Amino acid sequence: MEWTLGEIAEQIGAELHGDAGLAIRGVCDWRWIREKGLSGGEDLLGWEARPLTDGSFLDSAVQALIVPRLPDGGLREGKSYLVSQDPRYAFAEVAGRFHPLPRATETRIHETAVIDESAIIEEPVQIGARCVIGARSRIGRGCVLEAQVHVGVDCVIGEDSVLEPFVVVLEGTRVGRRNHLGTGAKIGVTGFGNVPRDGRFLRIPQVGIVITGDDVQIGAHTCVDRAALGETRIEEGVRVDNLVQIAHNCRVGAHSGIAALAGLAGSTDIGEQCMIGGQVGFRGHQTICARVALMGQSGPVSNITEPGIYFGTPARPVKETHRITVALARLPRLLRRVRALEARLEQDP
Amino acid sequence: MEWTLGEIAEQIGAELHGDAGLAIRGVCDWRWIREKGLSGGEDLLGWEARPLTDGSFLDSAVQALIVPRLPDGGLREGKSYLVSQDPRYAFAEVAGRFHPLPRATETRIHETAVIDESAIIEEPVQIGARCVIGARSRIGRGCVLEAQVHVGVDCVIGEDSVLEPFVVVLEGTRVGRRNHLGTGAKIGVTGFGNVPRDGRFLRIPQVGIVITGDDVQIGAHTCVDRAALGETRIEEGVRVDNLVQIAHNCRVGAHSGIAALAGLAGSTDIGEQCMIGGQVGFRGHQTICARVALMGQSGPVSNITEPGIYFGTPARPVKETHRITVALARLPRLLRRVRALEARLEQDP
Amino acid sequence: MEWTLGEIAEQIGAELHGDAGLAIRGVCDWRWIREKGLSGGEDLLGWEARPLTDGSFLDSAVQALIVPRLPDGGLREGKSYLVSQDPRYAFAEVAGRFHPLPRATETRIHETAVIDESAIIEEPVQIGARCVIGARSRIGRGCVLEAQVHVGVDCVIGEDSVLEPFVVVLEGTRVGRRNHLGTGAKIGVTGFGNVPRDGRFLRIPQVGIVITGDDVQIGAHTCVDRAALGETRIEEGVRVDNLVQIAHNCRVGAHSGIAALAGLAGSTDIGEQCMIGGQVGFRGHQTICARVALMGQSGPVSNITEPGIYFGTPARPVKETHRITVALARLPRLLRRVRALEARLEQDP
Repeated sequence: MEWTLGEIAEQIGAELHGDAGLAIRGVCDWRWIREKGLSGGEDLLGWEARPLTDGSFLDSAVQALIVPRLPDGGLREGKSYLVSQDPRYAFAEVAGRFHPLPRATETRIHETAVIDESAIIEEPVQIGARCVIGARSRIGRGCVLEAQVHVGVDCVIGEDSVLEPFVVVLEGTRVGRRNHLGTGAKIGVTGFGNVPRDGRFLRIPQVGIVITGDDVQIGAHTCVDRAALGETRIEEGVRVDNLVQIAHNCRVGAHSGIAALAGLAGSTDIGEQCMIGGQVGFRGHQTICARVALMGQSGPVSNITEPGIYFGTPARPVKETHRITVALARLPRLLRRVRALEARLEQDP
Repeated sequence: MEWTLGEIAEQIGAELHGDAGLAIRGVCDWRWIREKGLSGGEDLLGWEARPLTDGSFLDSAVQALIVPRLPDGGLREGKSYLVSQDPRYAFAEVAGRFHPLPRATETRIHETAVIDESAIIEEPVQIGARCVIGARSRIGRGCVLEAQVHVGVDCVIGEDSVLEPFVVVLEGTRVGRRNHLGTGAKIGVTGFGNVPRDGRFLRIPQVGIVITGDDVQIGAHTCVDRAALGETRIEEGVRVDNLVQIAHNCRVGAHSGIAALAGLAGSTDIGEQCMIGGQVGFRGHQTICARVALMGQSGPVSNITEPGIYFGTPARPVKETHRITVALARLPRLLRRVRALEARLEQDP
Repeated sequence: MEWTLGEIAEQIGAELHGDAGLAIRGVCDWRWIREKGLSGGEDLLGWEARPLTDGSFLDSAVQALIVPRLPDGGLREGKSYLVSQDPRYAFAEVAGRFHPLPRATETRIHETAVIDESAIIEEPVQIGARCVIGARSRIGRGCVLEAQVHVGVDCVIGEDSVLEPFVVVLEGTRVGRRNHLGTGAKIGVTGFGNVPRDGRFLRIPQVGIVITGDDVQIGAHTCVDRAALGETRIEEGVRVDNLVQIAHNCRVGAHSGIAALAGLAGSTDIGEQCMIGGQVGFRGHQTICARVALMGQSGPVSNITEPGIYFGTPARPVKETHRITVALARLPRLLRRVRALEARLEQDP
């Protein structure tokens, strides 16, 4: 693929300074290319979040950069710039055009794939080496199943979804359209269903399903348990990082994000547009309202009913936690100060 | 499978109110069926943990419910009920009859399975597509190895165990009977054995094994490291959730449960009937006595010698942690109060 | 393999007491053998970190032990000893000779392996059942790829590396020499790259690579994301445990160790010879200087610029955190004490 810088400026609505005819064939980190002394870079587009304050870009092989609006027009001669209000977002837009999610446009099914005869395969589709598609499952048109993907029985994979190597989708799971499931992700897993009595566990069979909305992204090695009964639901636009645990009967509201190693115990209900930090833990049967951000390692112990930023275990509004954190450093001395006050009052009754 | 409601009442020792002859063919979440407007439900059995206080069940397609003993006999006409002291447990019993763990009753070995000629396969057994069984390993009768299971050398898989897709069992591991190993679980892994000197690590070969007792359940993507020397031991009836790390030479006592993303560093020793919450971390060479519950995200820094409920990092008895948590909210103001006291005493000597 | 005790004493520079001609064929945990009543042990070498204070070793089948230097020469007749300043290190050296990392000395490529015709395979090499090697990738001489390993396109696997079953290496990753990648490890994963706007996420394509140095060890199920642009770097000698998340554009400095379930968000920079405990979380764009130890579950919220031991969330020098921890237990009572002081001053103005 190739576009001129002028075409890209139009695509992302940026202001062009420099050579509109410059041919761009990809994106790059111009500092890394410079630091490593890599050759090439003339036809790549870089970006900067902050105004360039030195001349280091001038002697780079890279010719064009997406930059924020500069207060004093600090753009230097000899290079080209796309000025944008939100350079990171603009860069993501350009990069997404050069590297779109793969999508099957012609049918290629590897000879080593094992597809149950009752499965429905909508063409065009790509099914890689050693994939297994179980009975009565349906693979939507445009899907790309890379090597070694395992789709169990009664599943649906929505149109234009990408399943990386060693993805497993089990037992009635319904994956939406344009989902991206990272290598080793496991959807529809048998969850942790056990009821204790007399010091032993009795297994609770897990017979529900998982449903994901459109445009969902699930990271490598993330586990989504199927419901005990009913459904576990990941709504449209949700982005889940690697190594996350989402237990049975959870709901993750539309357009929420969950960072790595976070854990949602059973029946956690997360609202729309939430941002869940890494290693955050939910103990289950909790409701988090929409537009809540939980900073990394937090552990909310009850429901959260107000949008905002929260931190800590138990999770409190972040300002409150910061005040406590600052005060904690003074706690050991505070004990001595109170002892001194007590001593003084005792001496002087 | 199908039983009458009367037969089920007898199986679980519940009191029947209503139609003893009602045919039941499965279990369900009656609220979910109602909410989604799903058809069917006439031959499914639901349950409720608490007494039904409204009439919402009356217009459900579901005809029968397991319910707790009601103070005022609030069961409504037109539906059937099984009254139980512990509805959740009773429901698990019924669901377990409808959905038993799979068990091989006839031998089916997929043509793509690779089985070493020195391996011992006890019939009947099911070995799915692309399984690999290593030298001198033994697969017990009744086992179900789903697709892509990898059993290394010198392993034993006990009778009637189920290994889901992409399970890996390595190097001398001895799995007990009726184990259920979730998709992607790795048992007998090379652990983190390194000894530092002069700023470098020297690898400590890991040459021990893992032993699991009967009726153990290991979740998806959980890793159990083999011992450095000797054995890592998961005792009978233990239930481990997804994405848990159990390092070399740990012991998990019988009938204990470990929730997702918990981590046991080397030589952690957990007693019987413990409940380890999600994301709990043990630093290794620690002993936790029987019947300890550790709430999510806790991090005990020393041994625990008294049964009870613990919380926090470092873990303390939960009541103590709660008292500290409540007090913490007042800490910033406390600092100001002590400053005021000091100022007053200085003014007024 | 077999050496005499005298040969081993020379190999590790230990002082021999006893039978120099004793044939040693392996290593063991002598206590475990004793406890279990296992037969054998006569030709195995054990070790002890601390001086033996009782006679329990005397009736063991094991004949030789690596022990620390004893103050009063407490070595008993009838057994043999290797006296070492650092028994654990000495034992690791011996064990490493008996159990070296596997290394291909003759070429064996399983007939079910699928190797792209543009891939470069340097002999001798071992490539196990159902491995997949993608286009333009290079596998160095001496490498052992166990079963079901997936190497994507444009990757390099350095000489003498070992890749366990279900390892995945993707998209331009460059693995160093003598790396050991544990079962299920995923290197070169598509990271969590999303930029939010107007309540939705836009995907940021991840087009960089991962580079690992020589002698790196990566644990089971650990994920290393490829860079968004540029590189994610794991330097030589680094040891990473199981279930660790290393996000895009991180650097882990040479000879650092990272324990299980730790998480490094994007662009975390960890210096040389750091020791990162289990479940430690970094929030990204953080710099940790060389020779920092972070105890388990810590969460540094800013850069760390001084070597030392740190603990807590936020991470503080460990002594400071311990002082706070001790003080916290007294906080609830402190509140009452301050209230008493206030009351007294009010009564007595």
